[in-house]
Amino acid sequence: MRIDIISVVPELMTSAFSHSILKRAANKGIAEVHLINLRDYATDKHKSVDDYAFGGGAGMVMMIEPIAACMDDLKSQRNYDEVIYMSPDGEMLNQSVSNQLSLKQNLIILCGHYKGVDERVREHLITREISIGNYVLSGGELAAAVLCDSVIRLIPGVLNDETSALSDSFQDNLIAPPVYTRPAAFNGWKVPEVLLSGHNANIDKWRHEQSVKRTEERRPDLLKGK
Amino acid sequence: MRIDIISVVPELMTSAFSHSILKRAANKGIAEVHLINLRDYATDKHKSVDDYAFGGGAGMVMMIEPIAACMDDLKSQRNYDEVIYMSPDGEMLNQSVSNQLSLKQNLIILCGHYKGVDERVREHLITREISIGNYVLSGGELAAAVLCDSVIRLIPGVLNDETSALSDSFQDNLIAPPVYTRPAAFNGWKVPEVLLSGHNANIDKWRHEQSVKRTEERRPDLLKGK
Repeated sequence: MRIDIISVVPELMTSAFSHSILKRAANKGIAEVHLINLRDYATDKHKSVDDYAFGGGAGMVMMIEPIAACMDDLKSQRNYDEVIYMSPDGEMLNQSVSNQLSLKQNLIILCGHYKGVDERVREHLITREISIGNYVLSGGELAAAVLCDSVIRLIPGVLNDETSALSDSFQDNLIAPPVYTRPAAFNGWKVPEVLLSGHNANIDKWRHEQSVKRTEERRPDLLKGK
Repeated sequence: MRIDIISVVPELMTSAFSHSILKRAANKGIAEVHLINLRDYATDKHKSVDDYAFGGGAGMVMMIEPIAACMDDLKSQRNYDEVIYMSPDGEMLNQSVSNQLSLKQNLIILCGHYKGVDERVREHLITREISIGNYVLSGGELAAAVLCDSVIRLIPGVLNDETSALSDSFQDNLIAPPVYTRPAAFNGWKVPEVLLSGHNANIDKWRHEQSVKRTEERRPDLLKGK
């Protein structure tokens, strides 16, 4: 998989892609992420990428010209499955969207910054708009990093132990059960007996019960197959 | 505001806090974020912070001892309003949670990594669990950065133009209207006439109508006051 992320502050994302799982995915050649500085595609002599909004009001708007030039350049080099815009009013990211996207070959992700992008970009150049949640961020950069993390970790070979992702929360509409590790007692707080019993069938049963209980308590909407 | 983020890979977040809005908030002395390496609080000679799960299964679990030691150290220096754990089964982050948290003085954010933290941490040491969305990430680090961004930008003085945050999506349960900037025509795609009219009352009316229309189309749940 190849992901090209277009941004006016690409340096905001560098550390997210140079550590842990995303670094491992890059090193293994499974998923490469390219951070593209939109200013490299500015079309005027001042390297402008934003301007005041027509009609007035606070906040700058990202111009269509550099974005169109950047996307034209990328698309001349390869085909893209989706051109995604990170936006709080887009389709809500969930595990099933991440699963779908993990099967794609090439993605462009455009990060809005300031007050957002010129609407004509969204109408004509974007194929999909995704939100990571009902809150506003300074820009789409952290949202893009979140999207990449949730997608790339699902590609086979990225995680060391492939069963690890399958037992995550949401994959089966159940929240993961509680986990415990050494020491068996800390400050008088003990690990549940069953986990120390060595009886695998009982442990599996306990974990499933805990998953169901926790899902009922915290996220009953998941059980309704929503 | 002071935020202490505890993590096993704090370096994953450095670039998020050294650019754009979060850097500006730090430079102005409005919000300082400290990235704390949990390994500095490891209690054994191997600097262990994680171990296998009791009862078996894939994935490592973060141990309670270093986390308790780290939090004790922080709490001995100042009082904290909340000790937050980033978790996909926590309370869902939304703009109203961000607004609340932006009024706090001191916060601890614990980032889970691997398979999560020992359940006793969540039972005894955490005051609030927050999820940024219904998807699984490699760790809580990007989620913590997202939370900090959504909160810190709301503190008065962080954004250059204070009216800018107030006109964001969600603040009034409406999605922001479309925005446009130069050029007025690109590739035959034109900016709506009203925005070029200079007639402020008409522009305000158009923007409000567009907000309502867009919210009805994309996020009718917001209009129900959900």
